[in-house]
Amino acid sequence: MHSVGICGSDVHYWQHGRIGDFVVKDPMVLGHEASGTVVKVGSGVTHLKPGDRVAIEPGVPREMDEFCRTGRYNLSPTIFFCATPPDNGNLCRYYKHSASYCYKLPDNVTFEEGALIEPLSVGIHACKRAGVTLGSKVFVSGSGPIGLVNVLVAKMMGAAAVVITDLSASRLQKAKEVGADFTIQVKNETPQEVASKVESLLGCMPEITVECTGVQACIQAGIYATRSGGTLVLVGLGPEMVTVPIVNAAVREVDIRGIFRYCNTWPVAIALLASKRINVKPLVTHRFPLEKALEAFETTKRGEGVKIMLKCDPTDHNP
Amino acid sequence: MHSVGICGSDVHYWQHGRIGDFVVKDPMVLGHEASGTVVKVGSGVTHLKPGDRVAIEPGVPREMDEFCRTGRYNLSPTIFFCATPPDNGNLCRYYKHSASYCYKLPDNVTFEEGALIEPLSVGIHACKRAGVTLGSKVFVSGSGPIGLVNVLVAKMMGAAAVVITDLSASRLQKAKEVGADFTIQVKNETPQEVASKVESLLGCMPEITVECTGVQACIQAGIYATRSGGTLVLVGLGPEMVTVPIVNAAVREVDIRGIFRYCNTWPVAIALLASKRINVKPLVTHRFPLEKALEAFETTKRGEGVKIMLKCDPTDHNP
Amino acid sequence: MHSVGICGSDVHYWQHGRIGDFVVKDPMVLGHEASGTVVKVGSGVTHLKPGDRVAIEPGVPREMDEFCRTGRYNLSPTIFFCATPPDNGNLCRYYKHSASYCYKLPDNVTFEEGALIEPLSVGIHACKRAGVTLGSKVFVSGSGPIGLVNVLVAKMMGAAAVVITDLSASRLQKAKEVGADFTIQVKNETPQEVASKVESLLGCMPEITVECTGVQACIQAGIYATRSGGTLVLVGLGPEMVTVPIVNAAVREVDIRGIFRYCNTWPVAIALLASKRINVKPLVTHRFPLEKALEAFETTKRGEGVKIMLKCDPTDHNP
Amino acid sequence: MHSVGICGSDVHYWQHGRIGDFVVKDPMVLGHEASGTVVKVGSGVTHLKPGDRVAIEPGVPREMDEFCRTGRYNLSPTIFFCATPPDNGNLCRYYKHSASYCYKLPDNVTFEEGALIEPLSVGIHACKRAGVTLGSKVFVSGSGPIGLVNVLVAKMMGAAAVVITDLSASRLQKAKEVGADFTIQVKNETPQEVASKVESLLGCMPEITVECTGVQACIQAGIYATRSGGTLVLVGLGPEMVTVPIVNAAVREVDIRGIFRYCNTWPVAIALLASKRINVKPLVTHRFPLEKALEAFETTKRGEGVKIMLKCDPTDHNP
Repeated sequence: MHSVGICGSDVHYWQHGRIGDFVVKDPMVLGHEASGTVVKVGSGVTHLKPGDRVAIEPGVPREMDEFCRTGRYNLSPTIFFCATPPDNGNLCRYYKHSASYCYKLPDNVTFEEGALIEPLSVGIHACKRAGVTLGSKVFVSGSGPIGLVNVLVAKMMGAAAVVITDLSASRLQKAKEVGADFTIQVKNETPQEVASKVESLLGCMPEITVECTGVQACIQAGIYATRSGGTLVLVGLGPEMVTVPIVNAAVREVDIRGIFRYCNTWPVAIALLASKRINVKPLVTHRFPLEKALEAFETTKRGEGVKIMLKCDPTDHNP
Repeated sequence: MHSVGICGSDVHYWQHGRIGDFVVKDPMVLGHEASGTVVKVGSGVTHLKPGDRVAIEPGVPREMDEFCRTGRYNLSPTIFFCATPPDNGNLCRYYKHSASYCYKLPDNVTFEEGALIEPLSVGIHACKRAGVTLGSKVFVSGSGPIGLVNVLVAKMMGAAAVVITDLSASRLQKAKEVGADFTIQVKNETPQEVASKVESLLGCMPEITVECTGVQACIQAGIYATRSGGTLVLVGLGPEMVTVPIVNAAVREVDIRGIFRYCNTWPVAIALLASKRINVKPLVTHRFPLEKALEAFETTKRGEGVKIMLKCDPTDHNP
Repeated sequence: MHSVGICGSDVHYWQHGRIGDFVVKDPMVLGHEASGTVVKVGSGVTHLKPGDRVAIEPGVPREMDEFCRTGRYNLSPTIFFCATPPDNGNLCRYYKHSASYCYKLPDNVTFEEGALIEPLSVGIHACKRAGVTLGSKVFVSGSGPIGLVNVLVAKMMGAAAVVITDLSASRLQKAKEVGADFTIQVKNETPQEVASKVESLLGCMPEITVECTGVQACIQAGIYATRSGGTLVLVGLGPEMVTVPIVNAAVREVDIRGIFRYCNTWPVAIALLASKRINVKPLVTHRFPLEKALEAFETTKRGEGVKIMLKCDPTDHNP
Repeated sequence: MHSVGICGSDVHYWQHGRIGDFVVKDPMVLGHEASGTVVKVGSGVTHLKPGDRVAIEPGVPREMDEFCRTGRYNLSPTIFFCATPPDNGNLCRYYKHSASYCYKLPDNVTFEEGALIEPLSVGIHACKRAGVTLGSKVFVSGSGPIGLVNVLVAKMMGAAAVVITDLSASRLQKAKEVGADFTIQVKNETPQEVASKVESLLGCMPEITVECTGVQACIQAGIYATRSGGTLVLVGLGPEMVTVPIVNAAVREVDIRGIFRYCNTWPVAIALLASKRINVKPLVTHRFPLEKALEAFETTKRGEGVKIMLKCDPTDHNP
């Protein structure tokens, strides 16, 4: 392994030992935003050879069920997924993974870019499910790492304007840097007031809202803000039950769609990175050698920076 | 006018003077499920002539806005709609309507079938938004008139099996008659228990749920019941705010889509009625002459029967 | 194996030793429309056990490539396919197949219905790619077995009316029996004349044409016949190069879409057969025991009947 | 009127008096790529007032037919269209147009950008029909003005790489300037050889081909070049009948889709121009005052430059 990013879910398993129904019962290796170099391949593998630099898609379906056959393998209930208990992750020196889910990196794509394909994939899957297209006006709710990748991807897909909200001015500043057209620092506005500010900045209601916080008030704002006939995508996850203005969404035909991880995103991301059409490098704010993993996790837990990379190859700490 | 059906919304305006933000401030003619005979046409009308029997689509967009141009004219905020204040309905003897929204009935389609296109359209729009297709397993929640048309339409679109719920055994009996494969009489089950019964009867979770009650517990059951990657369509409208297991829907990519009336359904419905592929006649359980409208409304209010028709043509009370 | 239908491609390989680039170089078992009883399962198989009656999907992808991952595994270039050289088919007594592509038949579905899922799948895939939906007017060109399954499926999906053409009156008679609303016995009409007759019988141009002959004049008729904004699906395959009125299709936005076999159709077909929503039994016109395979092939070659079944189980020749 | 671009079809009507079935029988004003300033509005117009700068969508449906109602008004057979006989165009000083199809230009969008929305719309409609999305590999055939706008739009929609072909090195140079990643100067290659070069440059077959020449050999190359499961969009129009390898397209499920002008593109284009996300200015290579229209047409006819603008406002010849 070369570079592995730390995700909020890694921190959550470390601190709480569970996310929803997924409970850590035995020791588990963390990490699922990863890239590395092929050391060995099985006899049937033809598209990879030792020495190839690869990005790793952490979810590997275990059986050819209806979800796999219809192109939505992320929904397969028996899927293997790195660092979702009981499956081990890849924050380590050596790791074995299905070759079909290891993607060769072109020479002009770095290992860290390769590792960042994982969070980028969340944005790709969300924006695809949202139907972002040429000229879309988009409202991204929440300016953490996932909000940022959604800004990046929405712009890449032709969005005409993106407005983003957050409590933190510094996070909004980062969003500006990656391409947000407008920012709103939320204080104690009602959901309707947030929706109204979004419309005012865009000059119209957005067709698409990507909600990345999971907070009830933000989901409510997402419904109020979205234009009739548009789509609200739920990316952030909060409490199990939330109270929402469902009639408002229903009678305006605002679709509410969640996402579960992603599927079919690695080839897209590699093509974009190879053609230099998208720049994810500014997302990496900290780097630690694998030996200092604890320090890296503490830093992530404190909410510092955007994306923190662990460098697993003792001989190469380059990006 | 010949035949006009009474809708729950007509009763609601009569009793309460408002539905949500739509308030009856001046006397208003009710009725929007209607058919009649053309008496006179404007000089620019070429597709109709006096004597033609027509079904009337009650919503007529007033301006060529973005919703009209993209084929979703039902979402146009300035649309005219029969019997939605302040626009008058067509429960009367003579009525003027945009010729473009009057559809000639073939000789083998009756006036009452023509009037029933309106409720049928709700089912068509809901099932289209739901993506019902060949082999779909469908759960319809609620066995009132709208639940019934959804059963009819879902089967027409190739659904392999439809299960329907209701509190009332007699309504479920009616659902059986129009084509439901399985029925569940709900008593005091939890939403999860309802979902479990649905799965058990169908032999798998339904890809599609059409919720026609608007009741919070039913919406919850709809989310729990729907298969990962499927769609929950909200047709019934209840309280403004509801509490729902949104994370359950989101992480299983169960889309939640509302409908607002319908669009582009009259030609489809007429084609189906003309080819005798769908039988809506069993929906009409009562008929009253226009003079006895009050009695008809009282009957509807008491929840008797399924669809009650008012006969507006004093010379012809035939179906 | 229990029942295996004979397909035109089987006859073609038998007579000509090749179809396009697929050349029979070594002895090859024919047959790919099949059902049978499980005798033995591998250790990892959980959904099947010896004694289960199954229908067999003949195409099994060999690697998890981009087509498999996006739900279009039929396009995978390395797919295994029964009786496409060099892969053996299953017209024999015992046969080994990937368990994931063997589907358990419900008790109320016969072996022959199970075998007929294969040709039925061509209709399902074609009608899905065509976008047949509620109220569609459909033109099916050619009334052989594939034309017939397209009639069956189009009606199941809610088509309001189907018109079918053929040279043979007896084939058209069969089409009537399975549900075609109108038939046209083609003689020496020009493509435009055929299109005109189709429009005249339907009362409008069809949104969808399913071309099942592969004949150049029929493809031309399919373009002329299809309504602006509609779809022409090419199912029949003829000469490599054909001359078509491409500008006519292009400026009316008539999409031209081919199909290659099918994908994701077995579960749909089984659900429909189990719910008795579709009746494929009339398609079987002849049955022969496996020992008389040559006679069966000769009969098929002479164009007699619709679907000819070979009975591979010496102890059970029932449907 | 302020700025009106000259289109190839304008030159064709001028030289030949007809395009296909559209024949110029009476004197006709040319021009349909236009912008200007509102002088007067009808009493019912609320979104525009005198002094507003507007871009003009030249196609205005005359009746609310099935195509209009379903969002595909460009296919309406009775549509008014500037400079398609017998409808007059807007290459003149003053011109009357439906207010619903006049779009207010933001202050930061020039008149010429407004006029260029028309050719840009062809690219938007083609790329939308093609399904260009994040990471697409796209082959554009032909590097005239329409090829160029397709390059611009495909990149805006997230295409990872675009390869373009032409006979002319200077046109390919222009394509490079507007964003093409690779160019191929075609000489006497066979269609298969062109397809092979496209694949070689992209590193894979393109999912999407946009054919802008109408030449038979180019359409053939477009079929051979497009990846299985992909889409060939026909934008260029050539001879009525063409010979194409239809089986190759069909069995690889390569969809062939034409376009007829465009619909719903002006709001998208204005949003993109206002947010400075797309730069169409390099397309304008020549300007002439209206008085020198003949010279402008002669220049266009000689194939010089890319887009030639006529300046209709004697007081303002600025872009």
